[in-house]
Amino acid sequence: MKYQSLIALSCILFICLGCKNESAQMNPVLEVESVQTDPLPSWNEGNSKEAILAFVTKTTTEDGPDFIPEADRIATFDNDGTLWSEQPMYFQLAFAIDQVNVMSTEHPEWKTQQPFKALLEGDMKTALAGGAEGLLPILAATHTGMTTDAFEKTVKDWMATATHPVTKKHYNEMIYQPMLELLHYLRAHGYKTFIVSGGGIDFMRPWIEQAYGIPPHQVVGSTGKMKYEMVDGKPVLMKLAELNFNNDEDGKPIGIHQFIGKRPVFAAGNSDGDYQMIEWTTSASGYPRFGMFVHHTDAEREYAYDRDSHIGKLNKDWMMPPKTIG
Amino acid sequence: MKYQSLIALSCILFICLGCKNESAQMNPVLEVESVQTDPLPSWNEGNSKEAILAFVTKTTTEDGPDFIPEADRIATFDNDGTLWSEQPMYFQLAFAIDQVNVMSTEHPEWKTQQPFKALLEGDMKTALAGGAEGLLPILAATHTGMTTDAFEKTVKDWMATATHPVTKKHYNEMIYQPMLELLHYLRAHGYKTFIVSGGGIDFMRPWIEQAYGIPPHQVVGSTGKMKYEMVDGKPVLMKLAELNFNNDEDGKPIGIHQFIGKRPVFAAGNSDGDYQMIEWTTSASGYPRFGMFVHHTDAEREYAYDRDSHIGKLNKDWMMPPKTIG
Repeated sequence: MKYQSLIALSCILFICLGCKNESAQMNPVLEVESVQTDPLPSWNEGNSKEAILAFVTKTTTEDGPDFIPEADRIATFDNDGTLWSEQPMYFQLAFAIDQVNVMSTEHPEWKTQQPFKALLEGDMKTALAGGAEGLLPILAATHTGMTTDAFEKTVKDWMATATHPVTKKHYNEMIYQPMLELLHYLRAHGYKTFIVSGGGIDFMRPWIEQAYGIPPHQVVGSTGKMKYEMVDGKPVLMKLAELNFNNDEDGKPIGIHQFIGKRPVFAAGNSDGDYQMIEWTTSASGYPRFGMFVHHTDAEREYAYDRDSHIGKLNKDWMMPPKTIG
Repeated sequence: MKYQSLIALSCILFICLGCKNESAQMNPVLEVESVQTDPLPSWNEGNSKEAILAFVTKTTTEDGPDFIPEADRIATFDNDGTLWSEQPMYFQLAFAIDQVNVMSTEHPEWKTQQPFKALLEGDMKTALAGGAEGLLPILAATHTGMTTDAFEKTVKDWMATATHPVTKKHYNEMIYQPMLELLHYLRAHGYKTFIVSGGGIDFMRPWIEQAYGIPPHQVVGSTGKMKYEMVDGKPVLMKLAELNFNNDEDGKPIGIHQFIGKRPVFAAGNSDGDYQMIEWTTSASGYPRFGMFVHHTDAEREYAYDRDSHIGKLNKDWMMPPKTIG
């Protein structure tokens, strides 16, 4: 039922990330032309690419039956695993772990306190054994009890210095070239691009404008409670150790409604946490809608994972029929 | 102390709304020129207008010492009493009362249930006697227990038909011409204009884009909790009778941080509920900042009120020294 209604209203795509534009290389006669005119040069030729090009063309063709006015061209993108990598762990968790090490000199009590003790000893298995709930003390210690300004500076400093354990690249270099091209292509056609991520909004905003060309007010994410207070005669926003909003699963359509206020016509994700966002987007009537899933199938150049992964699990029934195309 | 620090970093303005451009009429030689070049023709000549023009000019002059890059030109506006009228009662309350009358045929129990009974009998004094808390049943009955789509339609229908009790204009015609000019002037100079209102976000968004040229994702307001659920095989967002976020007073800087993610350089309000937004805006370092208060002083053409008003009370100590200018 669900599967039917979604397919009827949208194109569900599974794309292979990081694939080279091999067709252009195989046909040098076409190369010059494709460099100049292909808005998605890093995408393999195939159904996925064709579907995107066809959708954008028809929705921006004035007087056409599928035309969408510019004000309603809302495109939403998950971040972790959709725009940048999320392996071997969410990068925000890598940030938190790095911060525990930085902050440990001011917290001698962590030497005997779990999960900090295990983490400081490099025993990741024990540190992460408690699952999401077990991580809360780490997130609270590294993300709250400070002002928003102080946290922003910490994130910027970390992003400028920390590197990915496997690639040794800075984390904001771990973004997907095909998706950058897609964001740019949509914006060049009057689409407004938004991030709709389960990640922390305060963790994303300090670097996302530079990385993706998406301004902070077009970033929707999870938020904590905060308090407006005076410190030394100046107002600050103090980050409190209490979740305000979890922008994942059911939370994504709610976050979209509260932050964006319009239903997207284009949505892209990569995991079960994005299911409701894509369902919400593609089940609306009126305009044509486009739902897209990034399927991680390239273990050589990135990571291959879906239903068995502890991160970015992609296991919903309707997604699993063999529809890998392109 | 507070007063000093605010004044040092900003221009606090008290403007007279709806005043005619009398200086142009007194000097016909200048009239043609002023019609063509004056971006704020409805504003009285004077300190307020000069301060605005000077601020926008200096912050958009490249290579000048006060230049602000376009990405950081964030301007926030309160709505009730700042962009449109709020007398004799908040228009959202007028909407709620109208809806009680419309919905009463389906709610026979309201004939004996306060505050509905008094309201249906036209006894506003009794109906509103319970203050803000007494209004909660009315707000819950008229704003929740329905989908976001259904509520949006209700607001649109009401806006197209309901009229103000005194002026008989539609409510979305009760907006201030000088403020429309200011919004337009700021946007023409690369500023992004946002609403930051205590009003309900779902009440504002259906009409604000048309009225002010501000898209839904640039509207920050109070929100209720909602639930994502399936109805007849289609997903809906159901509005629940529980407050999620009160975007007023201390809530305004928090709403600004969570929705916009950057600190404004320009903020305008008209009441004590806007104090913290303007404090947050004008106390930041780095760029020049502009804080502005609309003071309602024209009882003939609109309403005159401040410290004794039950709506839009303007009573903070630092605002009350006689600084009415222009």
